Amino acid sequence: MAAQEAAVRAQAEAVRRLKQDKADPDEIAKEVAKLLEMKAQLGGDEGKPKFVLKTPKGTRDYGPKQMAIRERVFSAIISCFKRHGAEVIDTPVFELKETLTGKYGEDSKLIYDLKDQGGELLSLRYDLTVPFARYLAMNKITNIKRYHIAKVYRRDNPAMTRGRYREFYQCDFDIAGQFDPMIPDAECLKIVHEILSDLQLGDFVIKVNDRRILDGMFAVCGVPDSKFRTICSSVDKLDKVPWEEVRSEMVGEKGLSPEAADRIGEYVQLHGGLDLIERLLQDPKLSQNKLAKEGLGDMKLLFEYLTLFGITGKISFDLSLARGLDYYTGVIFEAVLLQQENEHVEELVGVGSVAGGGRYDGLVGMFDPKGRKVPCVGVSIGIERIFSILEQRLEASEEKIRTTETQVLVASAQKKLLEERLKLISELWDAGIKAEMLYKKNPKLLNQLQYCEDTGIPLVAIVGEQELKDGVVKLRIVATREEVNIRRESLVEEIRTRTSQP
Amino acid sequence: MAAQEAAVRAQAEAVRRLKQDKADPDEIAKEVAKLLEMKAQLGGDEGKPKFVLKTPKGTRDYGPKQMAIRERVFSAIISCFKRHGAEVIDTPVFELKETLTGKYGEDSKLIYDLKDQGGELLSLRYDLTVPFARYLAMNKITNIKRYHIAKVYRRDNPAMTRGRYREFYQCDFDIAGQFDPMIPDAECLKIVHEILSDLQLGDFVIKVNDRRILDGMFAVCGVPDSKFRTICSSVDKLDKVPWEEVRSEMVGEKGLSPEAADRIGEYVQLHGGLDLIERLLQDPKLSQNKLAKEGLGDMKLLFEYLTLFGITGKISFDLSLARGLDYYTGVIFEAVLLQQENEHVEELVGVGSVAGGGRYDGLVGMFDPKGRKVPCVGVSIGIERIFSILEQRLEASEEKIRTTETQVLVASAQKKLLEERLKLISELWDAGIKAEMLYKKNPKLLNQLQYCEDTGIPLVAIVGEQELKDGVVKLRIVATREEVNIRRESLVEEIRTRTSQP
Repeated sequence: MAAQEAAVRAQAEAVRRLKQDKADPDEIAKEVAKLLEMKAQLGGDEGKPKFVLKTPKGTRDYGPKQMAIRERVFSAIISCFKRHGAEVIDTPVFELKETLTGKYGEDSKLIYDLKDQGGELLSLRYDLTVPFARYLAMNKITNIKRYHIAKVYRRDNPAMTRGRYREFYQCDFDIAGQFDPMIPDAECLKIVHEILSDLQLGDFVIKVNDRRILDGMFAVCGVPDSKFRTICSSVDKLDKVPWEEVRSEMVGEKGLSPEAADRIGEYVQLHGGLDLIERLLQDPKLSQNKLAKEGLGDMKLLFEYLTLFGITGKISFDLSLARGLDYYTGVIFEAVLLQQENEHVEELVGVGSVAGGGRYDGLVGMFDPKGRKVPCVGVSIGIERIFSILEQRLEASEEKIRTTETQVLVASAQKKLLEERLKLISELWDAGIKAEMLYKKNPKLLNQLQYCEDTGIPLVAIVGEQELKDGVVKLRIVATREEVNIRRESLVEEIRTRTSQP
Repeated sequence: MAAQEAAVRAQAEAVRRLKQDKADPDEIAKEVAKLLEMKAQLGGDEGKPKFVLKTPKGTRDYGPKQMAIRERVFSAIISCFKRHGAEVIDTPVFELKETLTGKYGEDSKLIYDLKDQGGELLSLRYDLTVPFARYLAMNKITNIKRYHIAKVYRRDNPAMTRGRYREFYQCDFDIAGQFDPMIPDAECLKIVHEILSDLQLGDFVIKVNDRRILDGMFAVCGVPDSKFRTICSSVDKLDKVPWEEVRSEMVGEKGLSPEAADRIGEYVQLHGGLDLIERLLQDPKLSQNKLAKEGLGDMKLLFEYLTLFGITGKISFDLSLARGLDYYTGVIFEAVLLQQENEHVEELVGVGSVAGGGRYDGLVGMFDPKGRKVPCVGVSIGIERIFSILEQRLEASEEKIRTTETQVLVASAQKKLLEERLKLISELWDAGIKAEMLYKKNPKLLNQLQYCEDTGIPLVAIVGEQELKDGVVKLRIVATREEVNIRRESLVEEIRTRTSQP
């Protein structure tokens, strides 16, 4: 090693001299490369090259504590989806590149492509909706209610403290099929309402709008047909930037007339409930537009159904809601957390959209060779933000979260009992008991008890020479330090009783 | 449309003429591209381009039925991992490319890279072991028992009918930490035994070997040090091709002397239990080799522990087991299904490896800046093959698998009761009952009952005008066609009782 280090020093000196002499840059570069390689080989203790030890930008690991929170959230969401009778499907993490092409409008630039290593051109999925539509068309399914929980990928600018990642989970519930108007749409909103209430994230509002109302509004405001989608993208920014900025984007970048922009400005300030829908149905301009009229009529029906569900209190018909994605054709919605109602947390978690969705009646037809349409409506729950909130709340609280479900630690009080511990733990495993032991030949009893304290294991089954002779096991209750001798043949039952949930 | 088609025909004619005239190839190419674009625009019925409607090569969708089977398998595996006290983690689907570099030997060519779209160079994970080691080093964790269930990616030649995919699940359980020899290793084998027994896949054998025994064997057979890994790769093929072929690869492609190869040939035919271990410990050549002696000593200890677990009946110490991956340093093992014990299935499912693993004491150190080692041993269950077997078995059987958990269908016998159905189903959802209704304003009762038959919903809650007046709901038991009137306030309890698992 010393010889190698000396060689590195000599090489470094050679580089220094070449630089001093203002030698040919190529030659310097060559010698520097040689130096770096020598250093890399020398590297750490065992001569290994240096790594950047990190996860890719915009991604994170989930440790056991985070996973415990994540599984709570998933469990609430899956319960709700199952309560509504959904089946579950899964699709590959990547799709043929062309499957994703032309579905996401301005967001397409955020799609991750795979390297062309020969064979098909592939991209990571950007959401679960387009793969779902591809699945329906490919299998000629015209009628399904399914959920799908999986990771999606967007080369976005990550803001991880606020729960915005490049790899993140979406929990999607969709209803596909030709049905009577607004019944499935209302159920999607009911689902969002149930999940957000269940998770106790604080106050929320679900904004609702309709692409047909937006398009009708654009038409009566004098937006040319060809600019509908791009103006819609501008409106979509209203939840993040003030109207003035959006207006100047419309007029400046997108070439809309100032008059049209101002007319839009009046509409997008409106939000309310059934009363607003009624008012707009009387609006002299909007009521003349076929699309807007259809959209408003359905919106009225939707609100009637939501009234029957008893959830209109948290629903706001909001003309500024646009949603970025190209494929929506009818109702659109987005759930927003209103504030952080948690007194424990000092630092406010960024508040934002935690669920969104809408109707996309044309997407499946884009995949069908004959263009056959399958009307769809669905909702996507974004768990990363929800997760950020719950994680910070848990950290601030006193609650100690268990990351295993172990019921009993198999321990020994004396030495030379490894074989006996192995025999007992094997019996317990075979009986379905969740059991651990320390992987040491002769662990100290204190260390074994400490392990239970640290990990929350409630019981210790202690084998000792006397107990073996007597055919019993000493069962210790960690919380009370109580110890009882249990006959070996009754041990499984005793552990079950003592650890069954009340 | 007719005009467009005429334009396409004219363009095709233009291309034909250019070709006939042997025009400049660039010009022909340009005109052909124009033709293709015009054709694409013409496309299907509604002028959409033609798609290849498929999932990427080597991948598949999971429909609701497949998911139901998959969740059964996961549930058995997760129960076992939890029974052994494991925590759970998750890592991103991609890693920095350099994280995967130099870990997989000859298999590295199968890694999927992401396209360089600016920023970091990324690859899809190839297994869960290397990300786990990276996670440990990055978080300076020296002691953990965790499981991780996630998809991994290999650009392999897929054989999907036999359960070999390019995207597939791995279910990994690993124990990291400095412990007394062979205790965690024995637990990994116990876990494989429990899971394969639980899933009732038929007879199986778990082959066990040790990299140190292999390396010792190579040394005493006269294999040069530099050829250990590549000769190990050849031995690894013995489960698929006969010895003669492996021998000729060793001698021909890899330049091993025929004598050395023949000596290896004698060893790799050996398999057995404690008796074979004892015999090899007396082998005049092997017993002189330090590595082999260490490996054999630990193998003996392992078999003692496995005897205490009562599972040696399914364990075979097999000198031909090599495992492809570079990172193993000690015990290695692989579980193989012996035959298809299912009389219902006509076509035999390919039988093969369904679990594998081993000890990798050096991998974490490759990531640690100071090369600090964290000894690890783990097992990976490959569910795709297991899944193939169960799927074919289920298809051949009479069993009807439910894909939802819906307890009750909210139905009506007369028209104009949509509002009442919506009100009732909302009450049921809010009480936690899994309920569905048809998304039609006025569905026929027969269609509603048929839906229950098709999907296995056991109960129907029927609202009708008379029932509304009387404050009751008619509850129909689908299996028996029995109908009872239940007071509305008792309905939830009644549904719970009637659908609770016995």
